[in-house]
Amino acid sequence: MGSNRFGHIFTWTTWGESHGLALGVVIDGCPAYLELTEEDINAELRLRRPHQNGYTSPRKEEDKAQILSGVFENKTTGAPISIIIFNQDVDSSPYEALKNLYRPGHANFTYLEKYGICDYRGGGRSSGRETLCRVAAGAVAKKLLKHFDIDVVAYVKQIGSIEAHAQWSSDLRQHVQSSPLFCPDPIATSRMISVLGEAKESGDSLGGVVELKSSYLPVGLGDPVYEKLEANLAKAMLSIPATKGIEFGSGFAAALMKGSEHNDLFTLEDGDSVRTLTNHAGGTLGGISTGMPLELRVVFKPTSSITQTSTTLTLDHLPTQYATPAGSRHDPCIAIRAVPVVEAMAALVLADALLLKRASRL
Amino acid sequence: MGSNRFGHIFTWTTWGESHGLALGVVIDGCPAYLELTEEDINAELRLRRPHQNGYTSPRKEEDKAQILSGVFENKTTGAPISIIIFNQDVDSSPYEALKNLYRPGHANFTYLEKYGICDYRGGGRSSGRETLCRVAAGAVAKKLLKHFDIDVVAYVKQIGSIEAHAQWSSDLRQHVQSSPLFCPDPIATSRMISVLGEAKESGDSLGGVVELKSSYLPVGLGDPVYEKLEANLAKAMLSIPATKGIEFGSGFAAALMKGSEHNDLFTLEDGDSVRTLTNHAGGTLGGISTGMPLELRVVFKPTSSITQTSTTLTLDHLPTQYATPAGSRHDPCIAIRAVPVVEAMAALVLADALLLKRASRL
Amino acid sequence: MGSNRFGHIFTWTTWGESHGLALGVVIDGCPAYLELTEEDINAELRLRRPHQNGYTSPRKEEDKAQILSGVFENKTTGAPISIIIFNQDVDSSPYEALKNLYRPGHANFTYLEKYGICDYRGGGRSSGRETLCRVAAGAVAKKLLKHFDIDVVAYVKQIGSIEAHAQWSSDLRQHVQSSPLFCPDPIATSRMISVLGEAKESGDSLGGVVELKSSYLPVGLGDPVYEKLEANLAKAMLSIPATKGIEFGSGFAAALMKGSEHNDLFTLEDGDSVRTLTNHAGGTLGGISTGMPLELRVVFKPTSSITQTSTTLTLDHLPTQYATPAGSRHDPCIAIRAVPVVEAMAALVLADALLLKRASRL
Amino acid sequence: MGSNRFGHIFTWTTWGESHGLALGVVIDGCPAYLELTEEDINAELRLRRPHQNGYTSPRKEEDKAQILSGVFENKTTGAPISIIIFNQDVDSSPYEALKNLYRPGHANFTYLEKYGICDYRGGGRSSGRETLCRVAAGAVAKKLLKHFDIDVVAYVKQIGSIEAHAQWSSDLRQHVQSSPLFCPDPIATSRMISVLGEAKESGDSLGGVVELKSSYLPVGLGDPVYEKLEANLAKAMLSIPATKGIEFGSGFAAALMKGSEHNDLFTLEDGDSVRTLTNHAGGTLGGISTGMPLELRVVFKPTSSITQTSTTLTLDHLPTQYATPAGSRHDPCIAIRAVPVVEAMAALVLADALLLKRASRL
Repeated sequence: MGSNRFGHIFTWTTWGESHGLALGVVIDGCPAYLELTEEDINAELRLRRPHQNGYTSPRKEEDKAQILSGVFENKTTGAPISIIIFNQDVDSSPYEALKNLYRPGHANFTYLEKYGICDYRGGGRSSGRETLCRVAAGAVAKKLLKHFDIDVVAYVKQIGSIEAHAQWSSDLRQHVQSSPLFCPDPIATSRMISVLGEAKESGDSLGGVVELKSSYLPVGLGDPVYEKLEANLAKAMLSIPATKGIEFGSGFAAALMKGSEHNDLFTLEDGDSVRTLTNHAGGTLGGISTGMPLELRVVFKPTSSITQTSTTLTLDHLPTQYATPAGSRHDPCIAIRAVPVVEAMAALVLADALLLKRASRL
Repeated sequence: MGSNRFGHIFTWTTWGESHGLALGVVIDGCPAYLELTEEDINAELRLRRPHQNGYTSPRKEEDKAQILSGVFENKTTGAPISIIIFNQDVDSSPYEALKNLYRPGHANFTYLEKYGICDYRGGGRSSGRETLCRVAAGAVAKKLLKHFDIDVVAYVKQIGSIEAHAQWSSDLRQHVQSSPLFCPDPIATSRMISVLGEAKESGDSLGGVVELKSSYLPVGLGDPVYEKLEANLAKAMLSIPATKGIEFGSGFAAALMKGSEHNDLFTLEDGDSVRTLTNHAGGTLGGISTGMPLELRVVFKPTSSITQTSTTLTLDHLPTQYATPAGSRHDPCIAIRAVPVVEAMAALVLADALLLKRASRL
Repeated sequence: MGSNRFGHIFTWTTWGESHGLALGVVIDGCPAYLELTEEDINAELRLRRPHQNGYTSPRKEEDKAQILSGVFENKTTGAPISIIIFNQDVDSSPYEALKNLYRPGHANFTYLEKYGICDYRGGGRSSGRETLCRVAAGAVAKKLLKHFDIDVVAYVKQIGSIEAHAQWSSDLRQHVQSSPLFCPDPIATSRMISVLGEAKESGDSLGGVVELKSSYLPVGLGDPVYEKLEANLAKAMLSIPATKGIEFGSGFAAALMKGSEHNDLFTLEDGDSVRTLTNHAGGTLGGISTGMPLELRVVFKPTSSITQTSTTLTLDHLPTQYATPAGSRHDPCIAIRAVPVVEAMAALVLADALLLKRASRL
Repeated sequence: MGSNRFGHIFTWTTWGESHGLALGVVIDGCPAYLELTEEDINAELRLRRPHQNGYTSPRKEEDKAQILSGVFENKTTGAPISIIIFNQDVDSSPYEALKNLYRPGHANFTYLEKYGICDYRGGGRSSGRETLCRVAAGAVAKKLLKHFDIDVVAYVKQIGSIEAHAQWSSDLRQHVQSSPLFCPDPIATSRMISVLGEAKESGDSLGGVVELKSSYLPVGLGDPVYEKLEANLAKAMLSIPATKGIEFGSGFAAALMKGSEHNDLFTLEDGDSVRTLTNHAGGTLGGISTGMPLELRVVFKPTSSITQTSTTLTLDHLPTQYATPAGSRHDPCIAIRAVPVVEAMAALVLADALLLKRASRL
């Protein structure tokens, strides 16, 4: 069935392992006549490149994307867009020591059980590096969204117990970009830096939450019953490694609310636009966008790779000790690096919904 | 693309409106030679029928399912299984008064905007009655799971601020069934009854959380990258009306945890079975089942239909007042009635994953 | 994966066995706001009902379709359209004698081998009666095509060695309908009647060819590489029972042609419409409609059920004799009854392509 | 929806243009633990490389495939297999002269109408070079088939009016490979060489037919109703450029046969294997493989690119003259080069059906 593919009309398939020759994505179903250059993709990859801040892993990837097909004279042609990113700076030697044991919190146990074989180098296919291809595909989706005046911005909402505050504004993205942690709240940022430092020092890691907000969406995105906008967004987000949950609008707090509080009341804005006074729904009703902004949060578990020592089993089921080597490249909090991925996945799902909507009426 | 269909190998398509002639589901891809009778489905529908407790809507539906195809001499044949449930006790007259206004928290605004037409009677296609077909399909999936010794049990975990406590045990299902609220914790049940009474009296409604646990799963369910087990479960659950979020294992609490706490350490059990000491992951690693039990929670917003009066707009964009008629049939807390639906959706996703797994190795 | 479903945007799923309670189809993805009544479907079923001519099987089916969902106030709503046709006049007793042997030319051998179980009554799921649901779904597709001024007409082109001649004209459909064999050529019709009579008398059956022509199509239907218009039409037609081949435009005769003959040269018509002088391509180039009429032919093998005696094997692999009982209901030439099915399948594929086309450009 | 993808479980997506940087294919869904090397693929590409015979176009492609992912220590891992073939020897200059006119028999008219843009260089996405990726993917499918002892062999059956005769035998493939025209019949080969020479001399081209036969298949491949084995094969074959039709077993000749001739009678072979005495069905009953060999034929139109001059229109709808430049690289008969493509597509469809079959029974 192909588990490396997503989307209905605007579809994308990613491939590649962390320590293989290259990773890539094939976008199949992008409408023709969208302006697109390699720089559009590389700008996104560059912008999203982890700051030299010590809070994201120090792999020095250039991660330069090349467009191999589907674009002619800087416009998409309707043909599949193949994007490739060659791997560089690959050092698989640290993984030799780990290849004979089950790594707690990692996928090598389940891959070995399911497939009988596992490319253990750098996490292989289950590595976070796969998400690079999502960001590349997302760059194309964002060009499409831009054409429809839709913008989506993701940022770090929480690391450990530190919560950030953020409102949608025209310069939200700028605030996010200027933070070394992709967090638009400067006070929270500095407190987060402090707890991240402590975690790192103790050879440990922290969990976090990424929030995403959008501009006003067009009404009518998403389809009833099983293809609700939230359903597809939930699938998209829970497909990102290390995610443990997602919530929309009021989310889990809705359990504590009454109907009279939660119901978003309809009103008119800007003359004759139907809006709601509040947006507890997070932008949808019945699985279809209401025209209000999308709002969702995704939680990431603390990074599994920690330098503290713990017990585990070898592939032969013998007890042993395990610790990620001190010099290895791992983020103390995965949520930071996940920010562009959440943004990309939202853009991709929305692009698909925009095209699907065209078939809804005669 | 068909937004009323779910699944890859074990697929199902539901159809029907709340006040139409019938609702139904077509299961396409169920393996041959599974024993199946109408009673298997009706037992599930009956068991799941809301108690005469005043906490779920009083529509007196028999909701008797008929199997129209795909079963021969009480065994599935590999042909599509068509199940039909004729609507009875339908009274559309209360909806006449509502047809000209946008109902807060309901889908008629988005349906009208998207399609230009909306069957307003009883919520039409966006009604919770569609979930009856999910329960019917889930009954078939459960027969399949039983063949593989897999059991899943859902229950009310939280209503308003009242939280229930529950552990997996061989009689968990029995505890759930014996509660008028599908809540296995008797103390929580009585407190929930109290807050539900208050909400109802004040013409209001409450939100809630449904939790699902399973027996030990087989290792290897779910597929890497975009078809992770959690990704499909998240899509399945967020396709249920009124859901606002989902979390697996530690869920949103993972944001507050450290890697050293969160990592589930591998150990041997029962001789040579690889298990984990804890199950913060909720049953998966890298999107593939670890063999540990599945654990997830789904949050439901408070019922949108309340008898308190609020403001809204007419279809002509004029301000007006709106209240659900006092005698109408609505649950004060949707989460209760959602319990069997969550259970059915989990069973369906697992059935699909079981069949997909067969193609993973040579 | 669901093998009883077809289409990408405009999708349909059929279900039901020949001698079960009912057959049906669920159309999922039909745009909202299409006018549709049960009479639209029943008119098609009635028109297509075999003439009382002795050349099609005498089963006296009323075959009245009921719309159970997806239509409100005579307009589609975007919700799935469930259509049901209850079986009547079912007599399974003749099949008792056949249930223990492999019927030559029939599917019970392969069904039994694949599934280990087979509903043998009337052919079960492999019966030609399944195609009734295709005609019902096709009736909806035709309403959609009509909205875009597209018409498709199928007819009997050949029975045995008798070939009919037909050109597209505004009254082609009328000529087809007035023939007891759905053959627009009266001279061929009378010769076909003669050979059909001979075949029937000798307890034998005949093969045939159905041809389909359309009005000028819009340019741009069909998608490059694997979703070419011909590719989907070929799949659609080869999914009809008893088909052995399909050809477009010049078809197999193209093997005998030179490029200089076969190339359809571009010209202007009606002012500024680009057309081709000939239409050897049958309406497509590169898998995409050129704007010329579609033209295809489908060949049907002679009916497998014959009253002549032949040898076969029992399910226990013992040699035995086999003959279809003289009074049983079988057509001497399946191609006749297949005419409306070919037309329906073409309409369905075109409806799907029309909706898909909307996503091709920005 | 992605029109560049095929398959249900064993899926593949191709990308790339004739004169772009590279072409490639991503296979998603290949089971783990299949032995696979680049040489497996390159051997297929090399074997299939047109002979230096003047009957296929003289582009000197090395066409060396590189595996970029999905294989670890020479075994597939279950991860997507990305294969890339860089373009070499590209000269787009001859196409400059053609870019402003509609090329008869080519796809640039329909691409321009559909997408508003067309990469005209070498035919862009509609070029026959895309089929190279099908052969690469087919090489992987063949490895899978080999594991199940299935072999498929395609060859030239007809060019113009010259027909070849061939029977399945253990050295059929060898006979095919030893012919400069992939035709196992030496007498036919020499006559075909003669007519090809005449066509070329007169600046013209010829049509042809490719036939495919297989070893005995396992029983049970293919699924009822819309996923019949022939239906998927028909879609696969009609997706190959320049095809105009397909037939199975008796094919169009079935129109001339009687049921008593056409019905394949069941018999026992090799002790207890159920076989049929004849194989007019071409290997299936009810869309499911009977265990007999697969047999099909695909017709290819004469090459559209001919050096004779013809009339056409410019993109501005002005009449003009058109001829493929004499020195350009085009085959006088496309069917020859299509042989490996037909073989690859059959292998791919069978590989997919083999995996799907695993879900058919409990």
